[in-house]
Amino acid sequence: CSSTTPITATLFPGDGIGPEIAESVKKVFTTAGVPIDWEEHYVGTEIDPRTQSFLTWESLESVRRNKVGLKGPMATPIGKGHRSLNLTLRKELNLYANVRPCYSLPGYKTRYDDVNLITIRENTEGEYSGLEHQVVRGVVESLKIITRQASLRVAEYAFHYAKTHGRERVSAIHKANIMQKTDGLFLKCCREVAEKYPEITYEEVVIDNCCMMLVKNPALFDVLVMPNLYGDIISDLCAGLVGGLGLTPSCNIGEDGVALAEAVHGSAPDIAGKNLANPTALLLSGVMMLRHLKLNEQAEQIHSAIINTIAEGKYRTADLGGTSTTTEFTKAICDHL
Amino acid sequence: CSSTTPITATLFPGDGIGPEIAESVKKVFTTAGVPIDWEEHYVGTEIDPRTQSFLTWESLESVRRNKVGLKGPMATPIGKGHRSLNLTLRKELNLYANVRPCYSLPGYKTRYDDVNLITIRENTEGEYSGLEHQVVRGVVESLKIITRQASLRVAEYAFHYAKTHGRERVSAIHKANIMQKTDGLFLKCCREVAEKYPEITYEEVVIDNCCMMLVKNPALFDVLVMPNLYGDIISDLCAGLVGGLGLTPSCNIGEDGVALAEAVHGSAPDIAGKNLANPTALLLSGVMMLRHLKLNEQAEQIHSAIINTIAEGKYRTADLGGTSTTTEFTKAICDHL
Ligand SMILES: CC(C)[C@H](C(=O)O)[C@@H](O)C(=O)O
Ligand SMILES: CC(C)[C@H](C(=O)O)[C@@H](O)C(=O)O
Repeated sequence: CSSTTPITATLFPGDGIGPEIAESVKKVFTTAGVPIDWEEHYVGTEIDPRTQSFLTWESLESVRRNKVGLKGPMATPIGKGHRSLNLTLRKELNLYANVRPCYSLPGYKTRYDDVNLITIRENTEGEYSGLEHQVVRGVVESLKIITRQASLRVAEYAFHYAKTHGRERVSAIHKANIMQKTDGLFLKCCREVAEKYPEITYEEVVIDNCCMMLVKNPALFDVLVMPNLYGDIISDLCAGLVGGLGLTPSCNIGEDGVALAEAVHGSAPDIAGKNLANPTALLLSGVMMLRHLKLNEQAEQIHSAIINTIAEGKYRTADLGGTSTTTEFTKAICDHL
Repeated sequence: CSSTTPITATLFPGDGIGPEIAESVKKVFTTAGVPIDWEEHYVGTEIDPRTQSFLTWESLESVRRNKVGLKGPMATPIGKGHRSLNLTLRKELNLYANVRPCYSLPGYKTRYDDVNLITIRENTEGEYSGLEHQVVRGVVESLKIITRQASLRVAEYAFHYAKTHGRERVSAIHKANIMQKTDGLFLKCCREVAEKYPEITYEEVVIDNCCMMLVKNPALFDVLVMPNLYGDIISDLCAGLVGGLGLTPSCNIGEDGVALAEAVHGSAPDIAGKNLANPTALLLSGVMMLRHLKLNEQAEQIHSAIINTIAEGKYRTADLGGTSTTTEFTKAICDHL
């Protein structure tokens, strides 16, 4: 199943705790004998002195060439006038679908033990257009853009995902009772795609009702597909059900088979450099990357090692109520391999 | 505390189960000796044959004159080309703040037993502008409008509410890292108002993070204030934490002291007319109306009777796992008075 010529993958460790958790991934992957050569680039909130830019051309080219990568957290300054780097990457690399599996971790108790769902978020448009203006003083407008092309594309991805991953249902999440035209178009596209997948049950759920159902009984859902902002909100809600963003992986899917796996938690500057960060989300994102590369054997090995380490409970980082350092937790995972 | 001249209040029973649960409120209020004369108007999805409109002038005038009312559910047709009646009422009556208290009901177990928060939603603008258009085929836009006036007004309401209800903290919920200008203006207004209330702690929480925190630990929140759509989403999420919209009250606040209390659940056409509906949300909304009218004694009496009936568990409607009819449950509440 695994090839002997190593695969080159891009690595953006990112800001704050990024470098530490990226180190953990490299360690675990090496121990597991994953045939990957990392091509590492710094992308983060420090300006590159050569190019005077946050995002270098080489970084983008690296992902475009390798078609696969892993990224750590990048800080988003609020109201500082420059665009979020996360968003810039999504835009520049045309990463149109953001996939976040969310499942209860055996051995890590939350209020819910029956979560097993996938959120698939449109990742390029919607409320994230960046188009905002003030014409009359004190009256500000922002534009939400929904296109047929992007909606069909993400719907197609969601149904294809459901079919190829043994999932039975796709729920389109919307607010078309209010935004009849924009969300209405999104639903229309989902319906069109649904017709091509008669074996998958299709339903439409209004976002407010969806949130209520999720907190009451998350087992009602399987695959959820939705416009950008709803995906942002619902994926965080779902992460909360199973313990938070420190435990949930994510992968961004682009055209031409590009995949950029990503830990979606913050850069946690308060604990950066202190060997306290939990690398689980980045590790599990790495596992998604391996599955994407069809390195399934190593993916499952590493996945089990992570799950078992957490379930065992002896080595846990502070966010999970333990006292282990990042390196101790990483070593424990390696010992499980 | 109670006056002898009765107060006239408008009653919109609404669609579906609306008339049955409104009947329940009338029964309970009469039994408790509440000095209210109901002025009842039909507003719902059936067109008034005289005026050929959904919403009669008399209905609006009734609320404007009485300054206080209670409304049941009104169905919202999806994509049928006419605006939601709920929204029309909010717009026409300038009901600028939607207040939804959300607390764990003693005796009704959910996964959470520590919820006690208030969501205050801007109710007139934001994503609910109704401004949508398609210029290029397959590219649809909708406009979110945030104004200084409406943001200041709802922020002022939230802080005043916190102060007068013994609450300690107001959290403004936003996505200003993406919508820097619109949500940025909302936050700016909240900050301005916060300065006038130094005794209230003020914080800002990004909506995705807020949803994650709410499902992990709702006790982190006290009063939440936010733009329209976020309020729609978060209030339903919070309702889900304590059992759903069948159990949570709401009240819309307008200029000049107008208050229209409202059950925010759906009209449940499937069980309409079958004497199966749970009147709790409308009853508790009625209690909010009584508190607004400073009929505090009767408000507390009725509130306790509702809570005790549910806690006792002998008479519960089907949605709460019981077998009681609406009238049996209502009678049980009256017996507790
Ligand atoms: C950091 C922020 C810009 C980003 C988003 O809103 O998409 C984050 O919340 C996410 O979900 O990846
Ligand atoms: C029915 C619908 C139009 C309404 C809304 O979106 O505001 C409802 O969800 C609510 O919260 O009152």
